[in-house]
Amino acid sequence: MKELEEYIAQYGTVKEGNVLKVDAFLNHQCDVELFDRMGAEWARLFAGKQIDKILTIEASGIGIACVVSRHFGNVPVVFAKKYQSINLDGEQYCTSIHSFTKQKDFHVIVAKKFLHEGEHVLLIDDFLANGCALNGLIELCEEAGAIVEGIGIAIEKGFQDGGKKLRERGYDLQSLAIVESMDPAVGTVSFRH
Amino acid sequence: MKELEEYIAQYGTVKEGNVLKVDAFLNHQCDVELFDRMGAEWARLFAGKQIDKILTIEASGIGIACVVSRHFGNVPVVFAKKYQSINLDGEQYCTSIHSFTKQKDFHVIVAKKFLHEGEHVLLIDDFLANGCALNGLIELCEEAGAIVEGIGIAIEKGFQDGGKKLRERGYDLQSLAIVESMDPAVGTVSFRH
Repeated sequence: MKELEEYIAQYGTVKEGNVLKVDAFLNHQCDVELFDRMGAEWARLFAGKQIDKILTIEASGIGIACVVSRHFGNVPVVFAKKYQSINLDGEQYCTSIHSFTKQKDFHVIVAKKFLHEGEHVLLIDDFLANGCALNGLIELCEEAGAIVEGIGIAIEKGFQDGGKKLRERGYDLQSLAIVESMDPAVGTVSFRH
Repeated sequence: MKELEEYIAQYGTVKEGNVLKVDAFLNHQCDVELFDRMGAEWARLFAGKQIDKILTIEASGIGIACVVSRHFGNVPVVFAKKYQSINLDGEQYCTSIHSFTKQKDFHVIVAKKFLHEGEHVLLIDDFLANGCALNGLIELCEEAGAIVEGIGIAIEKGFQDGGKKLRERGYDLQSLAIVESMDPAVGTVSFRH
């Protein structure tokens, strides 16, 4: 999505350690008009698919998913919740993910009553790097018996292998911008097309 | 807002300890059509006010704020971030809030570049009980010199004093449903009008 690449080039910041800061429009300040156009683009890319529900993960995915939903018939948005410790009462699907950014493991849960067998689910998130968060969402869908119809990612770090592995597993992964490389010395970002 | 009261009565669950669970439509599964109509109602209630930005707090406020923004000219949404510990680098406004639900203190931050002196801000959140989270957001605005034009809350627990104190301080607080009392034994909720 050319517009998202332009946003990244114009408002993103490249930091040491392959960090791309896009907090000006994606995950701290939110440009809701951009989110809406991202939704239109995903609706085009996933056209013809049955989507009953959008599943995302707190916190940055929530705003994107809620704005994007109107392009999929205003389907419900469910966000998985992160906890460092958890008392499972049997009413939740639960998995564990590792955050490389925060160097921590999280438990991620979705209430069983909000994810059902046979439901057609679109996964939405802001970033894809090594794929830990997405794999967690996929595991929650597998526990529930829900069908992952597609995965919509705003920004994929193409130099990490999360996206490659998901495509090899057969998932319909649509990243709106794929970063090929970044240069913190001069602040440039190059994209895969 | 009658429709929100009906949602609470129909889909909410009352638990011991004055807990009202509304995760079916507000803060785990999100009914984006309801969020949109909440936005229309706040636009009516805050009509004539200049709103440059919406400020909320992760996680549950984000989806509501992002959907509601289109009723205020698609202004940017900024969500304050919670951390248990933080290294301040001078680039953030920071305050501390206590969560009674989680029995923990959080640091709450907003990057200085996303909240400016003289900006007219609408605060949005899902719940108001004792007001700790909102007071944190107000403090961030005071640090920045931003003007709190109004506060939009989905559900206020009217039997706790957060709303009363904010109104006494002169804030234009518009709660779409104010719970007067709840009875966990029979699961009923009564509203203030």
